[in-house]
Amino acid sequence: MPELRKDPVTGRWVIIATDRAKRPTDFVREHVQIRGSGFCPFCYGNESKTPPEILAYRSDGSARDTPGWSLRVVPNKFPALGIEGSLNRQGEGLYDKMNGIGAHEVIIETPDHNLTLATMPVDKVEAVLWAYRDRILDLKKDRRFKYILIFKNHGEAAGASLEHTHSQLIALPVVPKRVLEEVTGSQDYYHYKERCLFCDMIAQEKETGIRVIAENPDFIVLSPFAPRFPFEMAIFPQAHRSAFEESQRHEFANLAPILKDMLMRLDKVLEYPAYNFIIHTSPFPDVSNDYYHWHLEIMPKLTKVAGFEWGTGFYINPTPPEESARFLREAAVATATL
Amino acid sequence: MPELRKDPVTGRWVIIATDRAKRPTDFVREHVQIRGSGFCPFCYGNESKTPPEILAYRSDGSARDTPGWSLRVVPNKFPALGIEGSLNRQGEGLYDKMNGIGAHEVIIETPDHNLTLATMPVDKVEAVLWAYRDRILDLKKDRRFKYILIFKNHGEAAGASLEHTHSQLIALPVVPKRVLEEVTGSQDYYHYKERCLFCDMIAQEKETGIRVIAENPDFIVLSPFAPRFPFEMAIFPQAHRSAFEESQRHEFANLAPILKDMLMRLDKVLEYPAYNFIIHTSPFPDVSNDYYHWHLEIMPKLTKVAGFEWGTGFYINPTPPEESARFLREAAVATATL
Repeated sequence: MPELRKDPVTGRWVIIATDRAKRPTDFVREHVQIRGSGFCPFCYGNESKTPPEILAYRSDGSARDTPGWSLRVVPNKFPALGIEGSLNRQGEGLYDKMNGIGAHEVIIETPDHNLTLATMPVDKVEAVLWAYRDRILDLKKDRRFKYILIFKNHGEAAGASLEHTHSQLIALPVVPKRVLEEVTGSQDYYHYKERCLFCDMIAQEKETGIRVIAENPDFIVLSPFAPRFPFEMAIFPQAHRSAFEESQRHEFANLAPILKDMLMRLDKVLEYPAYNFIIHTSPFPDVSNDYYHWHLEIMPKLTKVAGFEWGTGFYINPTPPEESARFLREAAVATATL
Repeated sequence: MPELRKDPVTGRWVIIATDRAKRPTDFVREHVQIRGSGFCPFCYGNESKTPPEILAYRSDGSARDTPGWSLRVVPNKFPALGIEGSLNRQGEGLYDKMNGIGAHEVIIETPDHNLTLATMPVDKVEAVLWAYRDRILDLKKDRRFKYILIFKNHGEAAGASLEHTHSQLIALPVVPKRVLEEVTGSQDYYHYKERCLFCDMIAQEKETGIRVIAENPDFIVLSPFAPRFPFEMAIFPQAHRSAFEESQRHEFANLAPILKDMLMRLDKVLEYPAYNFIIHTSPFPDVSNDYYHWHLEIMPKLTKVAGFEWGTGFYINPTPPEESARFLREAAVATATL
């Protein structure tokens, strides 16, 4: 008998198949391999092929848009939103619209075309996290923006159009629907319980342990109770923290190795799957609050999502999260030496 | 400058690219072709290869699960939900779950492997609509169910695993999240205006005409103001009608030709794309109401949806709906003779 489970944050029900649970090898999937063929605008020496850099980590004092960097942030060459102008919110009969104002940036995580977040040194992964923070702190000064979305598409099946490892940032003048759902859901819980829903969830998960994949002093990784996708996972700060950009130095130092570890385990268990990750954090301006708890969600791309899932918000997940968690937990042995 | 537009029903914002709008030929996409190779359990003569039929249209008095049918409804061989048992709603700490009770049925629309809803005779399309209604009326007697979802995956890229034309029905003990969002959104509008949001929208669209694709006495087809996908369309009853299954005889007679016409236009404009369609209707038991307006949503599968779209509910649509509507409207000439 399959099980219907409700996500406690968004209230979304999903069907969890329990009878013939799919194991890692049951999925037909893309194996992401770096081919390195053809010209790459993100590679060392090709700095002039991107729009001028917004931020770069350079230890040698080298000049902008020249070699010498270890990480670069540049505007997306084909931005989804434009940075210049006013929002000009207006109606059109019963409809509402505004100018597509926003920022769309690319974080080039390393000059080396052959690395991924799973294979690069852990201090370089930490640098990527600091770059996310630096860009958020800079962009949140712009009062037109209500939310900053940080995400990564890894592999063609996950929507990546360039294989050189990179993340993306979109600053938006509106709060995306699903972010709003999470915020509202956690506010409702807070009003009722006067406690953070995520903190309660983490405490409960630590008691049973069946959906816990890994933890360190600052972070815990869980398979969610009602995941939409097989082998979905989420990294939560152990202590209450509502916004990513308010993380402390020791937190970034502990997030980098656990993120790298999780991506290594995915590569091991699912043989280099395509994946997306997304940082879920508090919208502006109420970033320091007691009800929301930021987290990083990782979704390997294993199943084909049909239109009816988008149309209905109704998902069928062929792998119970307890199974996913067990596979990912047991993959720890081989990756213990980061 | 791209435009941000808000869907008036769900409140979801989407980015509509306006600069380099993508035309039909700009999309890399699957062209759905019927190959007819291999064994097909939905074909005439293979009735014993499906689970026993629930409903069949037979004009010759032939026996169950034998040839002689023009349409069959059978249980899905690999159902997402089980039909037997009680819901047994229960908690697990702060989580909520219940047994995966529901119905999962397949509507085999024709015995002919070579037809599609676009190419079959219009009276056969109408028979499919009556079959949807017959199954809804039967299943809604089961008080465990809160919603019945009717949808179609056409082509592999849209999630179809068998090419013989068919639709699916899932009866659920919960209301899917996006259905609830639509219902809540239209209730909010009704409380404020004391009018149906969809009726107002249809009136406004008829005034400007720029997003109207086609209409007949009972139905109108629109490109939505804030669509998530290029060439998305929705068929609405012209008069207020909250539930699909309450449609009258003349409505089914007018829905069949306009649905067939729209699918023919999709085939023409986008060269046989994969697509999904979904019927959005009122949840049980409040099916006859003044605030919700049922509709049939058609989504061609042209763009790759990355995880961040699922994760955030934030969509970038490269084709403004006014452009989509124009292409689909102008495709009418060739399909005028149904």
